[in-house]
Amino acid sequence: MPDSVNTVSTSAGAANLAPGNIAVPPVARVGDTLAQVATPSLLLDLDAFDANVERMASAAAARGVAVRPHAKAHKSVAIARAQMAAGAVGICCQKVTEAIPFVNAGIGNIHISNEFVGEARVALAVAMAAHVTLSVCVDDVRQVAPLGKAAQRAGVRIAVLPEVDVGQGRCGVDSTDAVGQLVDAIDHYEGLRFGGLQAYHGSAQHVDGWEKRRDTARLAADRASAYVRFLEARGIACPVVTGGGTGTAEFDIESGVYTEIQPGSYVFLDGHYGSLEWRDDWRFRHGLFLASTVMSTARNGIIVCDAGLKSVATDSGLPRFWSSQQASKPHYRTASDEHGVLELASADEDSAPWLGEPILLVPGHCDPTVNLYDRYVAVRHGRVEGLWPIEARGLSQ
Amino acid sequence: MPDSVNTVSTSAGAANLAPGNIAVPPVARVGDTLAQVATPSLLLDLDAFDANVERMASAAAARGVAVRPHAKAHKSVAIARAQMAAGAVGICCQKVTEAIPFVNAGIGNIHISNEFVGEARVALAVAMAAHVTLSVCVDDVRQVAPLGKAAQRAGVRIAVLPEVDVGQGRCGVDSTDAVGQLVDAIDHYEGLRFGGLQAYHGSAQHVDGWEKRRDTARLAADRASAYVRFLEARGIACPVVTGGGTGTAEFDIESGVYTEIQPGSYVFLDGHYGSLEWRDDWRFRHGLFLASTVMSTARNGIIVCDAGLKSVATDSGLPRFWSSQQASKPHYRTASDEHGVLELASADEDSAPWLGEPILLVPGHCDPTVNLYDRYVAVRHGRVEGLWPIEARGLSQ
Repeated sequence: MPDSVNTVSTSAGAANLAPGNIAVPPVARVGDTLAQVATPSLLLDLDAFDANVERMASAAAARGVAVRPHAKAHKSVAIARAQMAAGAVGICCQKVTEAIPFVNAGIGNIHISNEFVGEARVALAVAMAAHVTLSVCVDDVRQVAPLGKAAQRAGVRIAVLPEVDVGQGRCGVDSTDAVGQLVDAIDHYEGLRFGGLQAYHGSAQHVDGWEKRRDTARLAADRASAYVRFLEARGIACPVVTGGGTGTAEFDIESGVYTEIQPGSYVFLDGHYGSLEWRDDWRFRHGLFLASTVMSTARNGIIVCDAGLKSVATDSGLPRFWSSQQASKPHYRTASDEHGVLELASADEDSAPWLGEPILLVPGHCDPTVNLYDRYVAVRHGRVEGLWPIEARGLSQ
Repeated sequence: MPDSVNTVSTSAGAANLAPGNIAVPPVARVGDTLAQVATPSLLLDLDAFDANVERMASAAAARGVAVRPHAKAHKSVAIARAQMAAGAVGICCQKVTEAIPFVNAGIGNIHISNEFVGEARVALAVAMAAHVTLSVCVDDVRQVAPLGKAAQRAGVRIAVLPEVDVGQGRCGVDSTDAVGQLVDAIDHYEGLRFGGLQAYHGSAQHVDGWEKRRDTARLAADRASAYVRFLEARGIACPVVTGGGTGTAEFDIESGVYTEIQPGSYVFLDGHYGSLEWRDDWRFRHGLFLASTVMSTARNGIIVCDAGLKSVATDSGLPRFWSSQQASKPHYRTASDEHGVLELASADEDSAPWLGEPILLVPGHCDPTVNLYDRYVAVRHGRVEGLWPIEARGLSQ
């Protein structure tokens, strides 16, 4: 990439000293203890992760529903491979560029679960379709034509799934007429085929109260079902109905409508999902943590750690204190760019013993938190087992 | 780095297709128009940027106060060089690893404006001190000894600035006794020297109401002044009093207390700073934008763009719509991971004309937004002039 910075001169401040050649130290090495991990870092607890992957896979398999985990949550080839090894039929990506590392790693079946427009993205999708079984979403006939023409030129075939709005009120058409028009438009191109419907209800995932979440999920499934029947009445079979996430998976696999589910966060269970009401054994295990260090204890009653807004997403709540070697359990109160302020149990509690203390936090929202890091520090039983690259970090285009 | 993913097998889904070798396309090329830039991208308007750098430099110079811009805001060597070329005495970094790209690029004078603990960080600071004039902050005598010993062993000298709390209530000591102890501790080590005081009041930067912000800044300066006089009474001159940021710079340079200021956001003016009350010509120009594209218009009354939580920090407010080719001005209402939902002027306004439309947004908070990107697309008069790497992106340790 051209680094065209010719509008600025070289630094005047470096007059007397030679520039350094200092490498960024590794965040951890295999075999390290948690206390040796550089902070802030993103930890993946492999026991919890393995259990979560297995739990979702077996529950869906028992109902004959496919799992197509969402890679937007983890952005990691290693995690996608673990999901495929547990029986996933493929993965979802939310952006075309996000899919690139997975295509290159040989994940053979990828669904772009989102709309996209523009020549560059269409060209990228078509290039991918030469390597993987690719499906994409549309909610406007104007998205279909450029894709159809490019696919035909390239001699590839892309499955296209009209997205229907089943309650989210964001993307997706909301009439049978519009679905019919999309199916007709898809049918017009050799390089495209009708792949089924996407019926994803994002906000349903996050409804607290198990019964309310169940009812929201059922309503979404009913709406999806109505579109399926409409198409069947026109003689069009709907091979796939895809949607659902971590919050509604237990209902979606029972719905008789969804043929596959798209859960992402279940591998991690973030703080927000952890705060919801779950029943039976559907509560997944916390598998994602921030390793942080207390770096200032100048005032009693509070401690200041090194994980702030650049190390954890706060849109769905502040991180939650999880553990340390200290007896008391502080409360993460304020995040600024590079600092987290945690309150001790009382305003006059001596903060001094905390200086240098390693702590673990549970992030409020996994997806945008993961997107801040280049790798997971994969740990088991308190030791680092590997560093798993987050290859799709920052690939949002 | 070891990629130890031996707990997971290779993908079963890739059976019939060879893995791809698809490159991530460049986000832009020199000479591109704004409409050709891949989205979401981070745009830097060079005219605004140049004016902002010059404005701060000349205002401070007129008062004989040094500017030491904060690299935590921009994380970019090109921007640091532009600031140095405009007369900056050096830069601030907030984390030790954040400083690495600047050390390697020959920025010769770096202040770590934050506390840090632990052997690895101390070792890194000492390694840097062999290449640059380095200063660091402390607020606990236990931070001093490891640094002093390591500096002595390495034969380097590091300037150490006790941080005093001047109203923020986060890091920094809050008594003259504690400052005296820190100065004594620093004095104990050959490899350290007392470098002055850091007196930074973060939340003062963000006080709305010009008079209220002025009064908060004055109170902080008065507190800093009391510590300076305490040290002078002990026969200790205070060569540097550093602090202040974009919001209080105009007051800090008049204070007679601060010898240097640490502004960061002024080069960009984010949405939050733009919302504050400013007087005279102290309102900087908006220089940082998100280039985004409308990718779904399935419902009237709203449009959905491709910039969500992974493309813009929302802790200080949602992004603000700035411009497009369309006549109406929608309002950014909701951010999810990969989507931004914008409301049109009325619920039944036809959204269809917006599909594929490039739009510009002003991010609410620059620092954590910049940290989501690998480069700035530097533009002037609607054309891409260069791609400026954000070398310290993600270096939070």
